[in-house]
Amino acid sequence: MSLDRAALRWNGWGRSGEGVELSESRAAWLMQQLEGRMGRSLERSAAPLPLEKVELPPSRLSARALAKLQEACGGDGVRSDHAERATHAVGRSLPDLFRLRSGALERVPDVVVYPRDELAVAATLRACADLGIAVVPFGGGTSVVGGVEARHSSEQTGVVVLDTTRLDAVLAVDPTGGLATFQAGIDGPALEAALRRHGLTLGHFPQSFEYSTLGGWIATRSSGQQSNGYGGIDQLLVSLRLATPEGVLRTLEVPHSAAGPDLNQVVLGSEGTLGVIVQATMRVSPAPTHQDARAVLLRGFSDGVNCVRELVQGRAGLDLLRLSDSAETELALVQRRDPERSFDPTSWVLSGLERFGYGDGRALLLYGAEGSHGPAVRAAVARARACARHHRGMPLGRAPGRSWRHERFRAPYLRDWLLDHGVAVDTFETALPWSQIETGHEEVLRAIAAAARAHAGGGIPMAHLSHSYRDGACLYFTLLYPVEPGAELSQWAAIKRDVTDAIVGVGGTLSHHHGVGIDHAPWLESEKGETGMALLRSLKRTADPSGVMNPGKLL
Amino acid sequence: MSLDRAALRWNGWGRSGEGVELSESRAAWLMQQLEGRMGRSLERSAAPLPLEKVELPPSRLSARALAKLQEACGGDGVRSDHAERATHAVGRSLPDLFRLRSGALERVPDVVVYPRDELAVAATLRACADLGIAVVPFGGGTSVVGGVEARHSSEQTGVVVLDTTRLDAVLAVDPTGGLATFQAGIDGPALEAALRRHGLTLGHFPQSFEYSTLGGWIATRSSGQQSNGYGGIDQLLVSLRLATPEGVLRTLEVPHSAAGPDLNQVVLGSEGTLGVIVQATMRVSPAPTHQDARAVLLRGFSDGVNCVRELVQGRAGLDLLRLSDSAETELALVQRRDPERSFDPTSWVLSGLERFGYGDGRALLLYGAEGSHGPAVRAAVARARACARHHRGMPLGRAPGRSWRHERFRAPYLRDWLLDHGVAVDTFETALPWSQIETGHEEVLRAIAAAARAHAGGGIPMAHLSHSYRDGACLYFTLLYPVEPGAELSQWAAIKRDVTDAIVGVGGTLSHHHGVGIDHAPWLESEKGETGMALLRSLKRTADPSGVMNPGKLL
Repeated sequence: MSLDRAALRWNGWGRSGEGVELSESRAAWLMQQLEGRMGRSLERSAAPLPLEKVELPPSRLSARALAKLQEACGGDGVRSDHAERATHAVGRSLPDLFRLRSGALERVPDVVVYPRDELAVAATLRACADLGIAVVPFGGGTSVVGGVEARHSSEQTGVVVLDTTRLDAVLAVDPTGGLATFQAGIDGPALEAALRRHGLTLGHFPQSFEYSTLGGWIATRSSGQQSNGYGGIDQLLVSLRLATPEGVLRTLEVPHSAAGPDLNQVVLGSEGTLGVIVQATMRVSPAPTHQDARAVLLRGFSDGVNCVRELVQGRAGLDLLRLSDSAETELALVQRRDPERSFDPTSWVLSGLERFGYGDGRALLLYGAEGSHGPAVRAAVARARACARHHRGMPLGRAPGRSWRHERFRAPYLRDWLLDHGVAVDTFETALPWSQIETGHEEVLRAIAAAARAHAGGGIPMAHLSHSYRDGACLYFTLLYPVEPGAELSQWAAIKRDVTDAIVGVGGTLSHHHGVGIDHAPWLESEKGETGMALLRSLKRTADPSGVMNPGKLL
Repeated sequence: MSLDRAALRWNGWGRSGEGVELSESRAAWLMQQLEGRMGRSLERSAAPLPLEKVELPPSRLSARALAKLQEACGGDGVRSDHAERATHAVGRSLPDLFRLRSGALERVPDVVVYPRDELAVAATLRACADLGIAVVPFGGGTSVVGGVEARHSSEQTGVVVLDTTRLDAVLAVDPTGGLATFQAGIDGPALEAALRRHGLTLGHFPQSFEYSTLGGWIATRSSGQQSNGYGGIDQLLVSLRLATPEGVLRTLEVPHSAAGPDLNQVVLGSEGTLGVIVQATMRVSPAPTHQDARAVLLRGFSDGVNCVRELVQGRAGLDLLRLSDSAETELALVQRRDPERSFDPTSWVLSGLERFGYGDGRALLLYGAEGSHGPAVRAAVARARACARHHRGMPLGRAPGRSWRHERFRAPYLRDWLLDHGVAVDTFETALPWSQIETGHEEVLRAIAAAARAHAGGGIPMAHLSHSYRDGACLYFTLLYPVEPGAELSQWAAIKRDVTDAIVGVGGTLSHHHGVGIDHAPWLESEKGETGMALLRSLKRTADPSGVMNPGKLL
């Protein structure tokens, strides 16, 4: 069963009808909390334009082009109705949401195609290369970096969005061998459901899990929330088939090879600029029969960083390690307070903890282990507990772990709610070596605060550390800031520019797991260098000599 | 302290004066055992030609070329004496040994240069590109696939071997951050000694460890004997600097990135065809304070495969898992027998075990764990013991583990001893998914036996499984066969061709950790496909447009 885009909110996150519901009094209280922290009053945003009111330019494709695409994808596989074009115009970045809500879609696909197999994909790419039409591969469409925007270059005469979600077959599952092969347009829940029937899991749970696809994960070098244990998508991929305008690249289904450079790693992160990933074989694990996730409160971020580092370097076997800094910890605790009850147990516990030295600067660490071997899970959790104790942590039990698991995919819904209330939420993420984590955290936070002051008159910056490695970790920053009505895009761009400069300035990567897309592309050369860019461009020229694959992204 | 090549055996493995020493009676007994198993009598090989008797063609470089190289590498960094040229002509493959022993070196460098820093490497590459002279990067020189043979293409006027062993500085060690940066010509023992001073290890111990370099490990996608725990070199590399004729490629020192394709993974396995790796930052681990390695005897290879697979898939935390098939098990046991004692305890134990069902087909499994956390090491070993018991294994205790550790780098010395006695030893390795491991093992073994019969009148084929992954493992085959005097090279080539065809035929990779070099290059397109080869060639053209970098290798 393919991802059902008709059931999804066209201009926001996730499924229509799902989302954040707050009582009026709770909403008022939350907004008051945010206004207090931002030092500014907030106004509700204008209501989003309904889909039917959005005006789109006419589709420009010639009858000849349409005929060629219909030949490739079949009659019902080629669509240019209003809803299809509008829902395939952009992804789910903050500027994308601004565009969708205002209905001012600058770029829209001329047509959306739904190939069902590799032959149809290959024929589509060849047709577009012949005709000089851009092709934008589109899986779940959840890119937060502009990776699926329906762009074409100035020489091209149109843009085809290639929706991969009909490529959703489960091709093979080998529980003994620990392998499973899928068509690449399968979405997260369908993939996990297929594996669970065999007692398996991929263990890849990015925040977009419910609405993103295997091919999208690979194309963007995605990392799941439990990448500590299962590895990022780059470690889960065994082999793939990539249809390019020049032919199909296939890699061998072997666990490891020294036969030259690894071409999987060239496709991972290629963001649709080389071709369309049509099929992938993945490493899968036994579905966990034992799970344990807990929280501990530390006196400061620094204690938490040391604790996480020691656990990862000591190969303690944890799947989940998520450390919030003080600002994020406070906001998480605020969300848990209940203003409607005269006795609020959370407030009571918090003030009690303050007296014991867990006040300003306190940092919440979530840790967890899972697996099919109970003693190993227990041993991992015990090591984490001992390490946290050593760093003067106060155990908070399993409840925060349960609520994390329950709410792990909900944050993007809250983003829409806040946007309705005049508050923009943007996120910035990077990875740094351990030696740079604390200064990087401070400097980027400072830059975010300065950018919010300069361009929005204030904001709430915060961060967490997740996706830890022996040699460093990902820092994930969130900024809440008041939207400037009528200047949403320029305000966003100014903040984005300042923050990205700061990330590059501290030596961080442009992205740990969101990708490059359009939004980070101007900085890519500062990361890859001149020779690196030349190598990437040579790959592009070889796979896509006419330059039709996802133009304007990455390179 | 650089690798001291003057102390090494010029036409065989390792350090002069070290090697295998057998008493006359033990040698006679061993040869008799081999003759029995091969069904052929064996004759000692002709004595190798001494270095001073080897005739080399005159060096062809012009005075202008020499002056340019001297400008780059300094006066004492450019050498063209007889010994330098002869010792940098080839690597340590079986055909290389035939060439060295006979003194018939077809290809010899015109000059050997020893750059001391990146600038000198870059200047050398530019000079050679300008002059149309091939450059062969040469670290330890232990390639077993022809990767360092001093070749040039037909358009080129000479060949410079670029010896990296003066690039041996330890640039930075960060024990807290788990990182260390080296110049890439540092050899294994020097690298480990530098790390041990900080209580660290890289954990990378290929069989060539004593005589190979960090840059060589990266260029060939090397795997160490404990890659189960520490990972292959591709997982240990964080960032590097690669000098190409067109400029320096540098990658960012971050633990993970989603900013486009991973260019580390393009250099890993590039075998000197893109440039020279001059520097690398590696993930390092705390040096182990707890180690435990043990052996168990299984009734059959199949039991062992299941046991290893279950342990790896269950994330049991073992560093060492090495399973010998029945032929390798028997030869290992033969080596341990003592023909000079009337009561031979090994024979006695073996015949005892036979009565308990550990006879024909029995397979030896070595397993071990290490680390800085005692309980984790004990838990890993306990899980392996329990798993082996479940598969009806007979524990053999710690002695085989100790002797493996003691002898882990000695096998190549035995190869020289056998060659003196008319027995060639060649190895073939691949990796396969678990579902193909047993049939792959059988089919390739059958092909090896057939090739040995057809081209050598017989031989002893055997294999082990090592470097295991959740989704498959490496199969490592060894063949002992009688050398055909006067036809050594054609005999080797015929066997190599038949066996490689068989490996490709079962779907295995051309190499799990030896690389491609010259020997596997004819099969590379069958592995990478047409599109894959086009991508690799485009990288080559961009980094090395004049085609001077290690011509004839890989591509």
